[in-house]
Amino acid sequence: MILKLCIAFSFLISASYGQISVVDFCVADYSVANGPAGYSCKNASKVITDDFIFTGLGVKGNTSNFFKVAVNGAFDLTLPGLNGLGLSLFRLDIDVGGVVPIHTHRVSEVIIVMEGTIIAGFIGSDNTAYFKTLNKGDVMVFPQSLLHFQVNVGNIPALAFVSLNSPNPGFQFISASLFANNLPSSIVEKITLIDKDQVKKLKSIFGGTN
Amino acid sequence: MILKLCIAFSFLISASYGQISVVDFCVADYSVANGPAGYSCKNASKVITDDFIFTGLGVKGNTSNFFKVAVNGAFDLTLPGLNGLGLSLFRLDIDVGGVVPIHTHRVSEVIIVMEGTIIAGFIGSDNTAYFKTLNKGDVMVFPQSLLHFQVNVGNIPALAFVSLNSPNPGFQFISASLFANNLPSSIVEKITLIDKDQVKKLKSIFGGTN
Amino acid sequence: MILKLCIAFSFLISASYGQISVVDFCVADYSVANGPAGYSCKNASKVITDDFIFTGLGVKGNTSNFFKVAVNGAFDLTLPGLNGLGLSLFRLDIDVGGVVPIHTHRVSEVIIVMEGTIIAGFIGSDNTAYFKTLNKGDVMVFPQSLLHFQVNVGNIPALAFVSLNSPNPGFQFISASLFANNLPSSIVEKITLIDKDQVKKLKSIFGGTN
Amino acid sequence: MILKLCIAFSFLISASYGQISVVDFCVADYSVANGPAGYSCKNASKVITDDFIFTGLGVKGNTSNFFKVAVNGAFDLTLPGLNGLGLSLFRLDIDVGGVVPIHTHRVSEVIIVMEGTIIAGFIGSDNTAYFKTLNKGDVMVFPQSLLHFQVNVGNIPALAFVSLNSPNPGFQFISASLFANNLPSSIVEKITLIDKDQVKKLKSIFGGTN
Amino acid sequence: MILKLCIAFSFLISASYGQISVVDFCVADYSVANGPAGYSCKNASKVITDDFIFTGLGVKGNTSNFFKVAVNGAFDLTLPGLNGLGLSLFRLDIDVGGVVPIHTHRVSEVIIVMEGTIIAGFIGSDNTAYFKTLNKGDVMVFPQSLLHFQVNVGNIPALAFVSLNSPNPGFQFISASLFANNLPSSIVEKITLIDKDQVKKLKSIFGGTN
Amino acid sequence: MILKLCIAFSFLISASYGQISVVDFCVADYSVANGPAGYSCKNASKVITDDFIFTGLGVKGNTSNFFKVAVNGAFDLTLPGLNGLGLSLFRLDIDVGGVVPIHTHRVSEVIIVMEGTIIAGFIGSDNTAYFKTLNKGDVMVFPQSLLHFQVNVGNIPALAFVSLNSPNPGFQFISASLFANNLPSSIVEKITLIDKDQVKKLKSIFGGTN
Repeated sequence: MILKLCIAFSFLISASYGQISVVDFCVADYSVANGPAGYSCKNASKVITDDFIFTGLGVKGNTSNFFKVAVNGAFDLTLPGLNGLGLSLFRLDIDVGGVVPIHTHRVSEVIIVMEGTIIAGFIGSDNTAYFKTLNKGDVMVFPQSLLHFQVNVGNIPALAFVSLNSPNPGFQFISASLFANNLPSSIVEKITLIDKDQVKKLKSIFGGTN
Repeated sequence: MILKLCIAFSFLISASYGQISVVDFCVADYSVANGPAGYSCKNASKVITDDFIFTGLGVKGNTSNFFKVAVNGAFDLTLPGLNGLGLSLFRLDIDVGGVVPIHTHRVSEVIIVMEGTIIAGFIGSDNTAYFKTLNKGDVMVFPQSLLHFQVNVGNIPALAFVSLNSPNPGFQFISASLFANNLPSSIVEKITLIDKDQVKKLKSIFGGTN
Repeated sequence: MILKLCIAFSFLISASYGQISVVDFCVADYSVANGPAGYSCKNASKVITDDFIFTGLGVKGNTSNFFKVAVNGAFDLTLPGLNGLGLSLFRLDIDVGGVVPIHTHRVSEVIIVMEGTIIAGFIGSDNTAYFKTLNKGDVMVFPQSLLHFQVNVGNIPALAFVSLNSPNPGFQFISASLFANNLPSSIVEKITLIDKDQVKKLKSIFGGTN
Repeated sequence: MILKLCIAFSFLISASYGQISVVDFCVADYSVANGPAGYSCKNASKVITDDFIFTGLGVKGNTSNFFKVAVNGAFDLTLPGLNGLGLSLFRLDIDVGGVVPIHTHRVSEVIIVMEGTIIAGFIGSDNTAYFKTLNKGDVMVFPQSLLHFQVNVGNIPALAFVSLNSPNPGFQFISASLFANNLPSSIVEKITLIDKDQVKKLKSIFGGTN
Repeated sequence: MILKLCIAFSFLISASYGQISVVDFCVADYSVANGPAGYSCKNASKVITDDFIFTGLGVKGNTSNFFKVAVNGAFDLTLPGLNGLGLSLFRLDIDVGGVVPIHTHRVSEVIIVMEGTIIAGFIGSDNTAYFKTLNKGDVMVFPQSLLHFQVNVGNIPALAFVSLNSPNPGFQFISASLFANNLPSSIVEKITLIDKDQVKKLKSIFGGTN
Repeated sequence: MILKLCIAFSFLISASYGQISVVDFCVADYSVANGPAGYSCKNASKVITDDFIFTGLGVKGNTSNFFKVAVNGAFDLTLPGLNGLGLSLFRLDIDVGGVVPIHTHRVSEVIIVMEGTIIAGFIGSDNTAYFKTLNKGDVMVFPQSLLHFQVNVGNIPALAFVSLNSPNPGFQFISASLFANNLPSSIVEKITLIDKDQVKKLKSIFGGTN
């Protein structure tokens, strides 16, 4: 008799709402082009738990690069279950002397420092700089679209986690943006007021053409 | 001469705005996978009036089930014209002694009682319960994501209509969520504090496995 | 000992989240000016169940007016608990021969007919009219901002309920908008192509000045 | 050695963020049906600068029509780079005696007059008319969904630019909406209070059927 | 002469944009009631760097409570700079045998495990459970409004960080919601199907009245 | 008798919707602090047509500054009627040789060139530069948050209008952001890779301290 009740209940749900669970989430289907709101949803019947899980942030990233920094994490291209949900999460490793150069993105960010000592800051559109030394357990927020940075000023490698409220924040690093492309040097000089020789040098570093 | 003016005007509109009407609404095309913002739009030239109409809420739903309740209505899967417009509408029938068990959904809901007497309520995140007996003509609002319920406490079948501000609200019934799946009983006990025997009994009612 | 556990738990919640319940909802405080997102929130400690309830839609509204129609309902100014939640609900009475004249509002609307027979419709921005006769139990959706109307074409008073996805939809009745104010008749004629005599007549009906 | 650093940096970026640039913008791919949030995105590797540019608003539009008005501009169907970005821009030419008839759209509009003299105005949902004579350099805002109009009341052709916060605003011209379709005259009369003869005349002008 | 240029530039900015920096962020002013979109903004001239910083998440929270769990973090009431920015960040400590009981909130959550082993999961509205054992460095996402939980199933205390895309997520713990208030036991039984004795026991644990 | 009808109608409207017009728009009340969604609304009874109008963009702005550029326009602080409506409009004058230096803002922008010849461009987050020479009548869109610029490369002063989809876009000029404040030179060097001497020089130009 219990069984009968159970069936009745199942019927109620399926009759009234059909396959409604498909919209609780929208696991990205990378085989179709995305749209302004994200990727199309994977067929609900094929969604598995692993679509919501990303692994590998327990170990230090590869910081053997110019800035001595590594950024790895879960965003729409690495964690399909984040699609449409408005969040991403990154692990940030900064070696001694390393730097996350000044950059911006479309959405706000919150950082928590877990190891080491960094100076972090952002700059308001009235050119006021808000910056401070952060240690283990300190949290700082960087408002959307404003320029910000992190610098390891301690004696050990720094570890931090950052979360942003978009599955794809769109990081834009200012120096790379200006010096890693084919934007003519004469224009770069005019729009930045940086001297010709300096522009030339930075273009060499970042691989831009003249 | 009137005719000539008419043509001139038509030309103006078509030349300037083209097929702009396609975006006034976005009738769901169920043949393509949906996305975070809803289904793709049916070709405008094939849209008909019936795409915006749903029929059949004039009669009582089938309440011969465990909870003595029927929920039927217009949402994105039954009324394609609702796609992208942020609304849905349901008819709620609750027989004498019937119950809409405690549940939640992503969006807010407004209910109007048309027949009978129910107790309806929701619970805030500080655990405060807001509940009251509602009669014909009474309206109550249930804020988004909060637990809420309706119970027929009168002598006649109750009839109500509910509207929610999503074309697909994502109803989640707590007891069914906990006891109608393969979540191990030991976990269910821990995350609810419900005793082992009770969990077992509810799993039997809702059809969950151990 | 159970009691002790209970206290410990309460402490955990209050210590971690404080007065977080205030943001589950935002009951309108009418004593302060509202903003683009709605009214300020009433102090949480003073919120009562009745803030979420509106009564009186169980009886027919007063239709003894020119259009033989009555619209009454729950929106931000009559049901403070709706503030910020994106929904409203109205009862619509249309006497025999009565009309809800062509109008528009910022948000989408869904209607359900409960008694009588009406013709309802809306017009797309390509000037296509979508209209149909609706009977008891029929639901129709009117997309945001598009012109729409309802006309009682039956032999008995019609009763319907409409829900809109804003706590304050901003109804704009076209004829009243054009003819109930001090907009000069010469301008009204030009922007509508309606003849002078007709404008004059409609201004008299709606109370506009010349 | 600089070159080596450059490569290391490039690796860092590409390894961490992949093809993230595709979401900075979403150039419309017209070959696929659009959705509630806009068109699907063109493949990032095929995006070119011209996808973000629209030309031809430097010359007067064709105003040889009934209303002596021309509206041309950049919106999602003419400037694919606007897709998903929430903006459009139009050039408005109004000849002497010309009129932009009363209309509405889903989103707000801001106008700047560059040549000539116009009367512009909008009407609130309480039927209050806000209107004024605008000259070169004057800016006026028309709130979303409200009825508004522009009339050239000067001695020279007027030129203005308008921007709206949607890539596809959905212009709805009231008179055309009412009189350019197959909505029965008897209904039009009832929902507008306009006399039978006037409705007939306007249907002739706009091409509606009886 | 450089100085003169500097002044000229400053003038340009201040003349054109005024105090525009106030809107880059909106540091909460707790002295005024909040609204549906958050708190009013603190006067820009009084904003300091510390308004964007929260400290103290470097040490374990107090887990000496029934669930052996501590949740501490940065949200609108503890980190005023988060107001209006759509993010919060919490530190989660779960002792051996501890549990974050099943709960829900208005927004999506992403978790990263830093120490220990937990089972985490959520339940879709079709009652499908998605759950898995997570270890150090594993990330999981919990879609908005869906029921979810975390259980320490390892031999050491677990440490995790969670980020949610609201400055005030509105945590709702199901068992506390049902059993920590004055909702009559008879109603609780009906809306949950839990037996009378069990309801009574849980009310005792959570402090609800009968 | 007509008058009687008119009164009946007025009664209908006022009885049902009250002061609903206040929410059609929300004219900024600068006397109260703003919030995340904008300023509080001015009392509806005091709203006048001029609250929606801004004048003075018909004449060239003052370009006697370092960059030979003037930006003037209608945004929330100069045109109160824009509050809450998601739009702003600016006049941009760039003298021969003048530059709008590289900058960013929270929202997307559309530009139309009316006089002169400029090179305009933006840079994607993958460092691709999209730039082109624009002449009279050309429109270009700059996606939200991405770096962009305009340079007068012609022989006459350039005139353009830009619209952005926020009443307060939050312009952030990169060079001023980096060099017009008290951010230590050593940090600026690290986060930009610009040489010490160059940083010193730019700090002098923009007025930053060391």
